[in-house]
Amino acid sequence: MTTRVFSPMQDYALTVDRFLDHGAKWHGQARVITAAEDGDQAVGYADLRVRANRLSGALLSLGLTPGDRIATLAWNSQHHVEVWYAAMGAGLVCHTLNPRLTIAHLAAMITEAGDRVLAVGAGLAGMAEKLAASCPCIEQLILLDGDRPAAVRGDAPITVLETLLSDRGRATTWGQFDERSLAGLCFTSGTTGAPKGVAYTHRSNYLHTIRSLQADAMALTAADTILVAVPMFHANAWGLPFAAPAVGASLVLPGRVTDGRSLADLINRHGVTVAVGVPTVWLGLLDHLDATGGETPSLERIIIGGSSCPDTLLRRMESRLGATVQTSWGMTELSPLGTISPRSSETGAARGAGRPPMGLDLLLTDAAGTPLPDQRNAPGHLKVRGQSVAQGYFGASESALDADGWFDTGDLAIIDDAGNLTLAGRSKDLIKSGGEWINPVEIEEIVGALPSISLVAVIGRADPKWGERPLMVIEPAQGQEIEDKALKASLKGRVADWWIPERIVRVVAMPLAATGKINKTQLRATYGGA
Amino acid sequence: MTTRVFSPMQDYALTVDRFLDHGAKWHGQARVITAAEDGDQAVGYADLRVRANRLSGALLSLGLTPGDRIATLAWNSQHHVEVWYAAMGAGLVCHTLNPRLTIAHLAAMITEAGDRVLAVGAGLAGMAEKLAASCPCIEQLILLDGDRPAAVRGDAPITVLETLLSDRGRATTWGQFDERSLAGLCFTSGTTGAPKGVAYTHRSNYLHTIRSLQADAMALTAADTILVAVPMFHANAWGLPFAAPAVGASLVLPGRVTDGRSLADLINRHGVTVAVGVPTVWLGLLDHLDATGGETPSLERIIIGGSSCPDTLLRRMESRLGATVQTSWGMTELSPLGTISPRSSETGAARGAGRPPMGLDLLLTDAAGTPLPDQRNAPGHLKVRGQSVAQGYFGASESALDADGWFDTGDLAIIDDAGNLTLAGRSKDLIKSGGEWINPVEIEEIVGALPSISLVAVIGRADPKWGERPLMVIEPAQGQEIEDKALKASLKGRVADWWIPERIVRVVAMPLAATGKINKTQLRATYGGA
Repeated sequence: MTTRVFSPMQDYALTVDRFLDHGAKWHGQARVITAAEDGDQAVGYADLRVRANRLSGALLSLGLTPGDRIATLAWNSQHHVEVWYAAMGAGLVCHTLNPRLTIAHLAAMITEAGDRVLAVGAGLAGMAEKLAASCPCIEQLILLDGDRPAAVRGDAPITVLETLLSDRGRATTWGQFDERSLAGLCFTSGTTGAPKGVAYTHRSNYLHTIRSLQADAMALTAADTILVAVPMFHANAWGLPFAAPAVGASLVLPGRVTDGRSLADLINRHGVTVAVGVPTVWLGLLDHLDATGGETPSLERIIIGGSSCPDTLLRRMESRLGATVQTSWGMTELSPLGTISPRSSETGAARGAGRPPMGLDLLLTDAAGTPLPDQRNAPGHLKVRGQSVAQGYFGASESALDADGWFDTGDLAIIDDAGNLTLAGRSKDLIKSGGEWINPVEIEEIVGALPSISLVAVIGRADPKWGERPLMVIEPAQGQEIEDKALKASLKGRVADWWIPERIVRVVAMPLAATGKINKTQLRATYGGA
Repeated sequence: MTTRVFSPMQDYALTVDRFLDHGAKWHGQARVITAAEDGDQAVGYADLRVRANRLSGALLSLGLTPGDRIATLAWNSQHHVEVWYAAMGAGLVCHTLNPRLTIAHLAAMITEAGDRVLAVGAGLAGMAEKLAASCPCIEQLILLDGDRPAAVRGDAPITVLETLLSDRGRATTWGQFDERSLAGLCFTSGTTGAPKGVAYTHRSNYLHTIRSLQADAMALTAADTILVAVPMFHANAWGLPFAAPAVGASLVLPGRVTDGRSLADLINRHGVTVAVGVPTVWLGLLDHLDATGGETPSLERIIIGGSSCPDTLLRRMESRLGATVQTSWGMTELSPLGTISPRSSETGAARGAGRPPMGLDLLLTDAAGTPLPDQRNAPGHLKVRGQSVAQGYFGASESALDADGWFDTGDLAIIDDAGNLTLAGRSKDLIKSGGEWINPVEIEEIVGALPSISLVAVIGRADPKWGERPLMVIEPAQGQEIEDKALKASLKGRVADWWIPERIVRVVAMPLAATGKINKTQLRATYGGA
């Protein structure tokens, strides 16, 4: 199209190994710290790069070739970071597994991915043994932490990371492949349907990282020490193992333990400035500090995401911790950052889940996919497009996008005049009654705020006259009771009369998915029939 | 190399039109303000995008096709920004011209670029007339500001921007081409040799922008209002017309006028938070504030570059303005940002020209090109590699890189333990005397600090015995005199005895290049012979 005899700008493939290269050369003393009961473990980026790079050589010496998948089953730790860079730098694909899933779920993911190696972190060798027994594709187990425990007796050969490094480690050339090569694989563990693999490319991860570093986004600097309370198996730990060496920030990895006391100790021991994780984790921190009168003076910012956070908790975090809270919204399919409340916003400003930093765009449509005429102040179906957004799932041969290239998030959302996004439920959870839509989230928010309610879910129940009618499932707070009449009265005048569920079911324990979210699929299977 | 049946991540070409698209959709009310004597002119990004996009259609209707070059001869203004986006969004190449160069220089550049259109800003119609007369390739003149002045009488048809927009403007699809297509062209106006064209691609500009937005780099946010005192014809105005809409920051464009009083007024009138430009400009601002007792309370940061800045001026800026100063180093060939002192550094910390943000790497070598064993605390020849670094010049068929892919900056530099770069002169200015090197910068710094000296330059003079000997040219401060003996005494004990120039020449006015730097080429032509 353009006259271009010779490329005037340098070739520079966008591959993630460059982040650790940069950290090692320009911030070699910035550290990755892993919490451990017998004393925290720390390594500088310069040394970590040497180890990860030698580990690449060791992995290749096992017969792995670029494009092969290597699975990790581990909490956040230095050795887990080393496996990431060792795999990705050599063109292998790092498939992160969630230890909170069942063996059957994990085995299905491993088999679909065709993982040839399984790297296992502390405390998870027992699971790994079962997985190796169930998955013939696994040829090799690598124990990341400590010696080979007697408990592991699967058929696959077992080696220990340090032994592998000393026996087979060798310096290896990183990168030098197409930037659209696969770097990572992460299966969504949604509340419905079979898990789907999201495959990240080097390019998508690189662009996601640089995007997240903008001053109104994660805004990390060489002066920061970042507590990563979001697991590395959740969508790249929100990209932090890439972002931190890219700017020379230190990382604090809590391992498995994320209770309030442990996190407070870690924050104070290492002068953490930025803490990242789901709201529940910080609620635990607040409760611990309140109970003990403790403080975390180094903490400047908390970045939350993964689920919406009540305004009262936001304000409590900001006032108790003296830290700025940035809300965010993301998805595994978005690498994961979608929106984030700008760092430069006034504290206490309305923010919802924030705005999209450059590199991703949002679109609201009606149920038929037609863009809403005014994209502001009216709820719609949320679609996204961007440099690090999935086009299709791992192994699929077809695009998951609509004709205009938008990815349907399955979420309902609203955008205000300032561009702030607020999520408003899942579109598949909408209930169609008499040809009109009922949004269960609006009912759940009202009922969920009652002190006698622990958890509430509203689902559609097949109805011969109306098509569907809402049915409410509640888990009362411990020792509490509430009558149907009071529940319905709480809704009266706040939602349309015909939205109010006729039937209410009480359960002792709400069924939860592995992510901690209410499993509506199971509720629909049990209570959704006519 | 990797198994890749289907790209799992969305295609998302890195093209610069996306920056204005993002600004228009998410920060439509953030503004581009142009200073004018009869009242500043302001436009929001939403409206600016509509105008620039319609202008694309008008340009294409003139018969231009993607890849064609369009030249701009203009100071910083809204209309200049509109032409940038109109050209680049439609796949045309925007060639910025420096109005401070001679007609002969500019005509040579226009001819080499084959510019088909010349867009001319306020006050420059007279130059444009001469250029059109000298350059047959120019088919069309566009007057950006005001009506058609009687002064323009060249052969090329002339139109006025607003007329073009109203007669031929139409909505146009932006982007949709290869991200490695050319976006811009800028000739270096160095102090030696023929000007060389640096051609920017959409990809290199996009990556440069996102790189500059890192929180330890330019760190711009939606809360910022940026005074762009660096001209748009100097290497993309350091990328600010891309970076500002990408984050929703407002731009303040001063037009031609950058004296201290005008800048102080602009800063206060529009609440400027970040000011960007060469040190000289801010010296003018300081002098004005000192003379008038004025203040600029909104100003938080100043980002300087283009030439090194004495520590005394740095400290004066920080204390008088109450603003953080970030130093930087760049080159036209680097798009232009090379290094910048981190925003998170302590105020007053040693910084030199700062560190390279992720996306660019530095290498120090000896004169033969061999990397220095320790890259720290020893001077070397500076080479760079990165995502937005030139590979070769416009029209060239060969790479300008060494065998390992490094671009030689022609600079001498030193890097300290913290990674801070300090420039130490141009390698071509080194003087080889008796087989050993003399660095003229070290001599110039000592003599230049004497109160009786306005400007000083040391060049090599051919010498039958030693090969070269240093010769010193001085421009004394107004009304001052200094004897050779005193000059030589100032060097005694601070440089090696054999570095001290035997011959000293006094000039009334030092010859300067268009950039304001001392023209050593001319000095060598005049005084360098045996």
